[in-house]
Amino acid sequence: MSDSSPTQVRLNSDSSPTAIGENTCMTRPSDGTIVAVSTPAGVGGIAVVRVSGSEALRMVLRHLSVSDLSPRHATYCRFDELDDLVAVYFPTGYSGEPTVELSCHGSQYVQQALLQALVDEGAHLAAPGEFTLRAFRHGRLNLSQAEAVADLIDAVTPAQHRLAVSQLRGGYAEQLRQLRQRLLDLTSLMELELDFSQEDVEFANRTELCQLLSTLHFQLSTLIASFRMGNALKRGLPVAIVGLPNAGKSSLLNTLLEDDRAIVSDVPGTTRDTVEELLTLGGVTFRFIDTAGLHRTSDAVESLGIERSLRAVTDARLVLYVHDATTAWRPPELELADKQVIVVMNKCDLEGCQSPVAGCQWPVVQISAKRCDGIDALKQAMLEAVRGELPAEGDVLLSNARHYEALQRVQQALAHVGKGLVDGTPADLLAVDLRDALYHLGAVTGEVANDEILSNVFSRFCVGK
Amino acid sequence: MSDSSPTQVRLNSDSSPTAIGENTCMTRPSDGTIVAVSTPAGVGGIAVVRVSGSEALRMVLRHLSVSDLSPRHATYCRFDELDDLVAVYFPTGYSGEPTVELSCHGSQYVQQALLQALVDEGAHLAAPGEFTLRAFRHGRLNLSQAEAVADLIDAVTPAQHRLAVSQLRGGYAEQLRQLRQRLLDLTSLMELELDFSQEDVEFANRTELCQLLSTLHFQLSTLIASFRMGNALKRGLPVAIVGLPNAGKSSLLNTLLEDDRAIVSDVPGTTRDTVEELLTLGGVTFRFIDTAGLHRTSDAVESLGIERSLRAVTDARLVLYVHDATTAWRPPELELADKQVIVVMNKCDLEGCQSPVAGCQWPVVQISAKRCDGIDALKQAMLEAVRGELPAEGDVLLSNARHYEALQRVQQALAHVGKGLVDGTPADLLAVDLRDALYHLGAVTGEVANDEILSNVFSRFCVGK
Repeated sequence: MSDSSPTQVRLNSDSSPTAIGENTCMTRPSDGTIVAVSTPAGVGGIAVVRVSGSEALRMVLRHLSVSDLSPRHATYCRFDELDDLVAVYFPTGYSGEPTVELSCHGSQYVQQALLQALVDEGAHLAAPGEFTLRAFRHGRLNLSQAEAVADLIDAVTPAQHRLAVSQLRGGYAEQLRQLRQRLLDLTSLMELELDFSQEDVEFANRTELCQLLSTLHFQLSTLIASFRMGNALKRGLPVAIVGLPNAGKSSLLNTLLEDDRAIVSDVPGTTRDTVEELLTLGGVTFRFIDTAGLHRTSDAVESLGIERSLRAVTDARLVLYVHDATTAWRPPELELADKQVIVVMNKCDLEGCQSPVAGCQWPVVQISAKRCDGIDALKQAMLEAVRGELPAEGDVLLSNARHYEALQRVQQALAHVGKGLVDGTPADLLAVDLRDALYHLGAVTGEVANDEILSNVFSRFCVGK
Repeated sequence: MSDSSPTQVRLNSDSSPTAIGENTCMTRPSDGTIVAVSTPAGVGGIAVVRVSGSEALRMVLRHLSVSDLSPRHATYCRFDELDDLVAVYFPTGYSGEPTVELSCHGSQYVQQALLQALVDEGAHLAAPGEFTLRAFRHGRLNLSQAEAVADLIDAVTPAQHRLAVSQLRGGYAEQLRQLRQRLLDLTSLMELELDFSQEDVEFANRTELCQLLSTLHFQLSTLIASFRMGNALKRGLPVAIVGLPNAGKSSLLNTLLEDDRAIVSDVPGTTRDTVEELLTLGGVTFRFIDTAGLHRTSDAVESLGIERSLRAVTDARLVLYVHDATTAWRPPELELADKQVIVVMNKCDLEGCQSPVAGCQWPVVQISAKRCDGIDALKQAMLEAVRGELPAEGDVLLSNARHYEALQRVQQALAHVGKGLVDGTPADLLAVDLRDALYHLGAVTGEVANDEILSNVFSRFCVGK
């Protein structure tokens, strides 16, 4: 390794020789005009077909009943004999290219026929995320922002939405970009030393490097640590509802969920399936983990269900322990040491129900799931229970698994560099690890963007964005 | 009945006293500002939220980062802290009212949050078809055109689309409207006679009435007769694939369908389920009817399958009789007297296959479903077989079941009038039947539009249109 040239070092730490640089992109150049339906798949009142590329306006105009489209003006016109629609021309659209958006009738037939007509003109059907990929290539957004667009579109809960918007508006990417630039400068100086290796000079200030490593370590640790919360917020804070059979766990879940659906059920396409076990209270989304009843059993199948319950409790950040208030209190036979727990006394509307448990270590809420009594108090208690765990306003959270993995690799590489500095490791070996750190850091901000990274990012997108 | 007053006559033949008149609409007046997601339900790159009503602009502007929206100008702005979107203000939008369309990110969360924000401003969530209902009330389209909008949105095949566009651009409604006006004039004159019943006068020219009845009868008969074809074209011309077991019926169907799906499968949301058994060739859609194998059996269950085959053949306009070419020719044991039939000799790629049937009364096509040989020739033969049944360019077809039913009632009422004229029935009785005819004729053109008719029409719509 000691006689490796700087060029080899670069090759070694990157998947391609030119991958380090500003927005260096290795996928084939973005050319041609692309077309896709940008609105959700299916049938609706209207659909939007988006055409992007240098030929977009010309291709569309050949079919329209008007001879030109004024920029950004919503023009009502006819597309062949196919449909009467509203066309808008953006000289520089979302993709950073000339773009035409056609708001047509949202039938399957019209959507397909418009695509077909434009494909016949020479347009390509856009790949998933291709409009955003082009926006990235034209410098309209960085890679982390491009990923935020996909997150934004996938957002179902307020927390998912907030995380995506924060990332789209900059998030931690800009901060990381600045730190990376300083690291890049120092690494370049260190590599310069290699060209003068006979002369034993030090262009890179080792003290400055040490300070930078320490700053980076602190920031990356904070970000990496925030991933668990970022991810939990994104997916919903896991809640386990547990209790003895017939305590009313299912009724409670139904009551909690039903209550939250007034608007949702009026909105087309807010598919119940996907929000089935999510409940959003005061901007916090709770995700309910399915559990079976807890009771002693010798039956193998039931044991399996109980095992699942125990796992649910392990995964949960909040446990609702449901107890039938008409029966004698029995503390849960579960390991709940480090959990937030709420004891839910159910069936409090029935005769013969017990008074609240005296001296219980957890907050107790009395409800009747059947009559929807006490549900607001329970919701309040749920919010109270997790409040301490929630990030403060303005906290930057890591919620992207790709970034999480990349930043962990950066930490590993920087740990090597730090150890190397202490051990007096030669500059060429330090440079290998520094380039490795730069590569993975750049993969987060998009300053390194090779085929693999881009395809990883953009395959997550829907077609039409 | 002879002493019934004209007012009572009106009450009798209409569901409401004022239902006869131009665009008289009995549902509660359309007021307030409405909001809905107009794009298909679900998640996508972008979604469009439409706000319509006198307060639309004001409500939206309270949330936007811009202080005003120029008419028809696509303005990029921020909606609260929620989303960056493109807003377009139409002083008179699709609904005939001030309308704002917001093209936002197509996430569930953003779509819901936008609706919520506007509902909080006092907007109502739009009922299915409410934008179109308002367009109808503002005289932007007649009832038959409003129905065509729903048909247009539901269109999957070219024929469905063409029928809807023809109806949207006028179709037969205008022609019927003119005939109805003439009938209305004559009926009014006849009712005037009732006010002078002591004097034995005739204001309404009976000869003119007879001629008009004859004209109407002819036109309505043509329209009613076209319904079967209109409906078949709309749903797809029914095709039965029949043949002995193992002749290769399923492979043939699969080969035919697979071949047609190149573009479809690239388009998001062109759900395979709904087009599963539809095949569009040269603008004509064929709908395949599921059939079981045909063979003699004493087994009750199999007999059931064969019965279903026989029914499929009865319903079909075209029968593909599949024969395994490696076996001896056996003519189909089916009643095919008045059917279009194509004999499909399958497995023609295998050794020992027979030569085409000599002297067969139907066209014969040799194929190999497995190797996709001869499929183009078969498609050509299918088109040839139905060509004679297809409407000529410009033919007006009835495809709306509601219109079909209403026009049949008009025919019945007019038949009574015709008989009454011959029999010398008194004017007051004639007027009852005439009002009946006018009512149902008006229900097609939308000149009669009471609650029942409107709710019937608009319940078919999706929300957001």
